[in-house]
Amino acid sequence: MAKAPVLTPQSEDFPRWYQEVITKAELADNGPVRGTMVIRPYAYAIWERMQAEVDARIKAAGADNAYFPLFIPESYLKREADHVEGFSPELAVVTVAGGKELEEPIVIRPTSETVIGEFMAKWVQSYRDLPLLLNQWANVVRWEMRTRVFLRTSEFLWQEGHTAHASQLDAHEYAMRILRDVYADFMERELAMPVLRGIKTRRERFAGAINTLACEAMMRDGKALQMGTSHELGQNFARAFDISYLDDQGAQQTCWTTSWGVSTRMMGGMIMCHGDDAGLRVPPRIAGTQVVVLVVRDDENGSVSAVAGRLAAELRDAGVRVRVDADTSTAFGRRATDWELKGVAVRIELGPRDVEGGEATVVRRDQRAKLTLALGEVVARTPGLLEEIQRALFDEAETRLVDSTSAVTSVAEAKEAAAVGFATMPFDAVGEAGEDELAEVALTVRCLQTADGGIPEDPDGEGLVAVIGRAY
Amino acid sequence: MAKAPVLTPQSEDFPRWYQEVITKAELADNGPVRGTMVIRPYAYAIWERMQAEVDARIKAAGADNAYFPLFIPESYLKREADHVEGFSPELAVVTVAGGKELEEPIVIRPTSETVIGEFMAKWVQSYRDLPLLLNQWANVVRWEMRTRVFLRTSEFLWQEGHTAHASQLDAHEYAMRILRDVYADFMERELAMPVLRGIKTRRERFAGAINTLACEAMMRDGKALQMGTSHELGQNFARAFDISYLDDQGAQQTCWTTSWGVSTRMMGGMIMCHGDDAGLRVPPRIAGTQVVVLVVRDDENGSVSAVAGRLAAELRDAGVRVRVDADTSTAFGRRATDWELKGVAVRIELGPRDVEGGEATVVRRDQRAKLTLALGEVVARTPGLLEEIQRALFDEAETRLVDSTSAVTSVAEAKEAAAVGFATMPFDAVGEAGEDELAEVALTVRCLQTADGGIPEDPDGEGLVAVIGRAY
Repeated sequence: MAKAPVLTPQSEDFPRWYQEVITKAELADNGPVRGTMVIRPYAYAIWERMQAEVDARIKAAGADNAYFPLFIPESYLKREADHVEGFSPELAVVTVAGGKELEEPIVIRPTSETVIGEFMAKWVQSYRDLPLLLNQWANVVRWEMRTRVFLRTSEFLWQEGHTAHASQLDAHEYAMRILRDVYADFMERELAMPVLRGIKTRRERFAGAINTLACEAMMRDGKALQMGTSHELGQNFARAFDISYLDDQGAQQTCWTTSWGVSTRMMGGMIMCHGDDAGLRVPPRIAGTQVVVLVVRDDENGSVSAVAGRLAAELRDAGVRVRVDADTSTAFGRRATDWELKGVAVRIELGPRDVEGGEATVVRRDQRAKLTLALGEVVARTPGLLEEIQRALFDEAETRLVDSTSAVTSVAEAKEAAAVGFATMPFDAVGEAGEDELAEVALTVRCLQTADGGIPEDPDGEGLVAVIGRAY
Repeated sequence: MAKAPVLTPQSEDFPRWYQEVITKAELADNGPVRGTMVIRPYAYAIWERMQAEVDARIKAAGADNAYFPLFIPESYLKREADHVEGFSPELAVVTVAGGKELEEPIVIRPTSETVIGEFMAKWVQSYRDLPLLLNQWANVVRWEMRTRVFLRTSEFLWQEGHTAHASQLDAHEYAMRILRDVYADFMERELAMPVLRGIKTRRERFAGAINTLACEAMMRDGKALQMGTSHELGQNFARAFDISYLDDQGAQQTCWTTSWGVSTRMMGGMIMCHGDDAGLRVPPRIAGTQVVVLVVRDDENGSVSAVAGRLAAELRDAGVRVRVDADTSTAFGRRATDWELKGVAVRIELGPRDVEGGEATVVRRDQRAKLTLALGEVVARTPGLLEEIQRALFDEAETRLVDSTSAVTSVAEAKEAAAVGFATMPFDAVGEAGEDELAEVALTVRCLQTADGGIPEDPDGEGLVAVIGRAY
């Protein structure tokens, strides 16, 4: 009798597969308040690694971490017209505090341009104070109509960078640097996710931005996920909050600002980019657990568990993040399936016969392939194996991205091609009317690129290529 | 002419000194919404180090990080009677979201026992699932009447641990372990702050706890600051949220839970425990910047800045967190004063004559003492010097704590002694009436200890010693 699959196959119902893997791999639960989520320890350990890697890159780009309040006076939001229009429908509002009705309602930050703008105005006086490069790790709240764990939740965790510059060029270059050297670099190296780098069309821009740079990834169902954005805000917020400085000639000038963020949404991207019908496949570099040593069965002396413990200690000394599963009161098959579900990159199986023969069965999660190694070899081979798996996951995702992207020449063709992947075509041939037409069938221009796949320097430049897809 | 002091002397007006040092050392600003704060980069870097050190100890104690929602249904708070009574007056409530009035108001977490209890009930089924050891780093909101930056703010950052156990003893031992091995160890080793470990009296307990363990420190004005607490919650929350398990005999049992937290309030403690009339003194182990290399004046060739840069690079290689201040357009004295204000442990001053003579002036911030070192010696000597400063700060604080604590025998004597420090006396001789009398003059029993300064095993035990003081 064939075993029933642990999860609904991806090809049958991808969204259902996504929900099931999140529950069964113990990644997250829905919170009691609509659209909120509980991030469970197994997923949070991955998020912590994501944070550490992104944070190191942000610091290398010269920004300092700080923390601004969760609470924003409602009036602040209203100072930038596009911004308030963009966020008003999604706000959660505190009207009662300390048992009393508040005089001015307080908004829970949906993003912090406004409150940070207020303090930038205070802190920036002279050109010597520029650029001012700030970042914060925080929770934000957006009351979305349709929510889905990690991808779109009422509350989510993110980092938001906010910078002020003396010139448009400096702001532009910094926004580009963040997208390329922080976000895309992190996503490709650590998450093993190839991403397209481009800019958003006018209608897809952040509320209040003059240009939005974005990283877009392709999921295993061919749909797109926006993984991170970096916004040039021009002087919109600087004027609204009076962020200005005295230049070296003694003249008062208005600053140019940027903002940029990545969030727990990346967890959703990682799941849908790499996961297969057996569960998650967590790239080793961001995995909380990279290797599990699984005691298949033990003898009366507990000698298999003892060997497993020693092996794990040696792996740990070699810098591997490893766990031992010696819970032989649960059936071996059940435990093996659970570790596959959780996507641990390497499973080392040890039974009495292995120990006797001085061998171990090593299972690569990415290929679900087994190899037999001499016990003495395992520690030396594992770090290289983890790197190989990291690379294989990236290569597989990149091949899919390339194979599922079709160059087309008309909106009609784009509709057909984007039903299963991405379509690329000249943006001139799409136009505003084309974007309307695409929207009718839930397609959007995910980003605009130069002919050779680069980030356009000029958002209104000519010869840009539109990447069209269905989006999460 | 004597220079005007940078700060109001502590002896003149300690609270004013505190506010001034926070502003002038660029630690924090008041946020736009009442009682909120902005944590500026210099302070946030210290907070990040505090987090890293506490987090490592929490993980070593076996707890896993997770994340629970900011939003709690109002009804959850009401399930534990003492808890709702304790927190109701301080709640911030969301009544409108997504443009609509909510059916059930949402409370912004003042602490997360309730929402975490709800999920513990889901996750704990059998004795094999116990103990369940969780922690989260998060922001919480308590609408306090009188706020003060870091010490008592409407929103603050903290970690809150929540655990469920099979027995009261196991819960008790874990709460003790957190207080001793995580909190007290961190505070003494990293913050260089000696802390008293004890338990709270009945009236000072956490709302819903059967026992509250606490670390109490003495500030430089002789007042007490509660630095961290660890609560035994008995079965109060387990009953309210139905956190139960099947024991190994197949019988249904109710769990025993704990909760414990430290917050950005520790920043306030660090400031008030170590700071002097010249500003902060940040213990090197938690300082974002441990050493500043200060270019006093440069020659035309920029050779002093070059030497400063090389020295800083060598210090960095030796594991020292160092910054160079080569901003010679600002007067040297002004910059030296600013680095004193910011409390950087070691200042290395370099001018043209020093460089020529192969020397550097090294200034210890803790003693404000200068020594001259050969340039070639600086790198080798600095790590040891930082350790010495760390120890000296602890010793100074410990001496003050000991010298400012008086053993007394009556409440009348306690009132007198606690006006300038701590008073200790037998708790039996205080009693409920004594606590009332102390409260009239703003004194409280900070904690109860055993006769030899240990943590009482039994909160209602005999022979306990009350430590009495004025509290922040």
